[in-house]
Amino acid sequence: RPAVTREEIIQTTGLNRGSTSQALQYLSRAGTILKIGELKSKAGRRRDVLKLNPEAGYFIAVDLESERIRYALTNLVGDIRFRWEQETTFEQHLDLNHLLHGLEMVQRNLEPWQQSRLLAIGISCPGMVEENRLVTAVNLGWQKFPLLDKLTHATSLPVFISVGCRVYVLAEQGIGLARNTTNCIYVELGKGVGAGIVVDRRYLEGSSQTAGELGHITIDPQSNAQCNCGKKGCLEAIASISGVIRQYVQLSGVSSRSRKSITIGEIFDKARKEDPVALQVLDRAAHAIGLGLSHLVLFFNPALVILGGELLQGEDLLLPGIKRELAHHLPAFFKKPEVSVTSLGLDIGLKGAALLAFQHAVTNTVILKRLTQPLTDAIAG
Amino acid sequence: RPAVTREEIIQTTGLNRGSTSQALQYLSRAGTILKIGELKSKAGRRRDVLKLNPEAGYFIAVDLESERIRYALTNLVGDIRFRWEQETTFEQHLDLNHLLHGLEMVQRNLEPWQQSRLLAIGISCPGMVEENRLVTAVNLGWQKFPLLDKLTHATSLPVFISVGCRVYVLAEQGIGLARNTTNCIYVELGKGVGAGIVVDRRYLEGSSQTAGELGHITIDPQSNAQCNCGKKGCLEAIASISGVIRQYVQLSGVSSRSRKSITIGEIFDKARKEDPVALQVLDRAAHAIGLGLSHLVLFFNPALVILGGELLQGEDLLLPGIKRELAHHLPAFFKKPEVSVTSLGLDIGLKGAALLAFQHAVTNTVILKRLTQPLTDAIAG
Repeated sequence: RPAVTREEIIQTTGLNRGSTSQALQYLSRAGTILKIGELKSKAGRRRDVLKLNPEAGYFIAVDLESERIRYALTNLVGDIRFRWEQETTFEQHLDLNHLLHGLEMVQRNLEPWQQSRLLAIGISCPGMVEENRLVTAVNLGWQKFPLLDKLTHATSLPVFISVGCRVYVLAEQGIGLARNTTNCIYVELGKGVGAGIVVDRRYLEGSSQTAGELGHITIDPQSNAQCNCGKKGCLEAIASISGVIRQYVQLSGVSSRSRKSITIGEIFDKARKEDPVALQVLDRAAHAIGLGLSHLVLFFNPALVILGGELLQGEDLLLPGIKRELAHHLPAFFKKPEVSVTSLGLDIGLKGAALLAFQHAVTNTVILKRLTQPLTDAIAG
Repeated sequence: RPAVTREEIIQTTGLNRGSTSQALQYLSRAGTILKIGELKSKAGRRRDVLKLNPEAGYFIAVDLESERIRYALTNLVGDIRFRWEQETTFEQHLDLNHLLHGLEMVQRNLEPWQQSRLLAIGISCPGMVEENRLVTAVNLGWQKFPLLDKLTHATSLPVFISVGCRVYVLAEQGIGLARNTTNCIYVELGKGVGAGIVVDRRYLEGSSQTAGELGHITIDPQSNAQCNCGKKGCLEAIASISGVIRQYVQLSGVSSRSRKSITIGEIFDKARKEDPVALQVLDRAAHAIGLGLSHLVLFFNPALVILGGELLQGEDLLLPGIKRELAHHLPAFFKKPEVSVTSLGLDIGLKGAALLAFQHAVTNTVILKRLTQPLTDAIAG
């Protein structure tokens, strides 16, 4: 929240008055909390209006994707202060040194006072993150990879990892469109297709942490489109970026030389110039997405569906068809949800990763101790 | 729970020791709570082991369906003591007098001491029950019908109404297969098709109380099968009882005379005698159900899926195909849920309606007052 008084903190957290006052004193002295004004109570007592100093701490946010890794230095509330990107062209699996190099590049650009207040690393990761933080991500070539242990060891910073859709939902709930919604769904349409589902403000994990597998519903049982998961006719095989590209290549008969280098952006451009094959392929994707969404919506009855991911760079081409098809597959009696495109764009992973780190920072004693260290001392150290 | 001590009640409810003791005293004196033994604590103190007297109160449970209404007199824990059934052949909408007649038939069979302890009516209803308890059920011809008000007025008993799938889930959670499961889905396969979804032990309502609309996902976009909801190719249009019957009639070319009277049971019998049309229609239904379930399962990642409804009377014919198709549409990496047929059979609606009444009884002062009235007094009155 932008500003609070000590009384409000005590009321909403239920913390003890004495220890709250002491904690606030430490945090104020350290510059982590700023006094931005005063309120006068009816009884005439003055109350300080307090605000978190967004520059009192920094996180490194990492958005791991199969072809690109985005890094950012963010302040406490997820504002990006510096960013760096890395192409990843790996043969078998993404190498840890690659990642460590990226983290080093971000840290090189830190001012000394930022360095001393670097609190943690937050990572958005594709695939699955198990409870013990082993990462399995087909697209990165990782099978039960101990990313958390390795990074913690190598960087000596606390590391927090969560799976893409969960991180995106965190961003939407914290600073995006889902701030005031109890039941909503974030749908990722990019290299992969997936859903982050919020029921009663809580992220739906499922009984084995794999809820929201929108990408692997069989959307067309007659289709021969092969999916990475081993099945055929999955929504992801038809409506992900690589699915769209593969269909375009098949239908357009482009030469084998240009086949490898064609991008989704080029297909969007062609469609905007009325290229019939590009239009047909995107129309098919929009139909498949709209149908898949209708199932999600009928099962969960959300108030809001947020669409995000690289495919939304073709919003003008895809969104009307998606919305039309979604409405077509909902019965008249069923209340339609609002459908919006994320306001966070492609930074959603970085913002979410920073919020993930912030969320954990609040309960992490190592980090909290740093936040009570006077800023000046920290700089001196 | 089968048996508890006073200390356990205080610990689990967090109630005040004094008022708990007093309440238990009242309830014991009234015969609502029975002492079934003693425990000796380490300190040597004796503790009474208490048990709810299941015959201390009675409910009328009603399972409203479009063609049949089931009534039951149940004890406090849902054991059926007496049952009555009514065929409903109505032209425009189900008449209230019809229902009142049924309720009277049940009450006529009450012993005087049961009459004095008749606590409430619990009703399982198709369609939608709005927050203000207005019932909209296409199959009963009801549009915002004030069932609760009318019944409360006519019977002077507390009435509790909930929608079918929610009632079924209550039964499964209370006395069925879902007792120890945090994430599970009950799937109704009968006159309608629907799902009752449990996330973290709570029933998923959705933002406008219409979550779980499994019956109205478009399972076959190419299909011309017309659904009651106005769409085509809905799962309910293909895999509900009427959907199966309609397809059988179309494919088999039965005469128009026998067309109206053919039942799902006859189609099951024909299939068991290898009738190819019956087998084909049931195979199609199993395929559609399995595919629809795979979507549900991929979105929610439940540990358990419970199947119920009249279609399960053809369990031998349908279940293998449903399970096979479900497995076929789940990726190898995805943990398959357990799939079981309800242990409550066609009584699930009655049992659930009784549990619905019991659940509300615990917080209803009128009912609680009755439960503290000595049983002997009640009989005398």
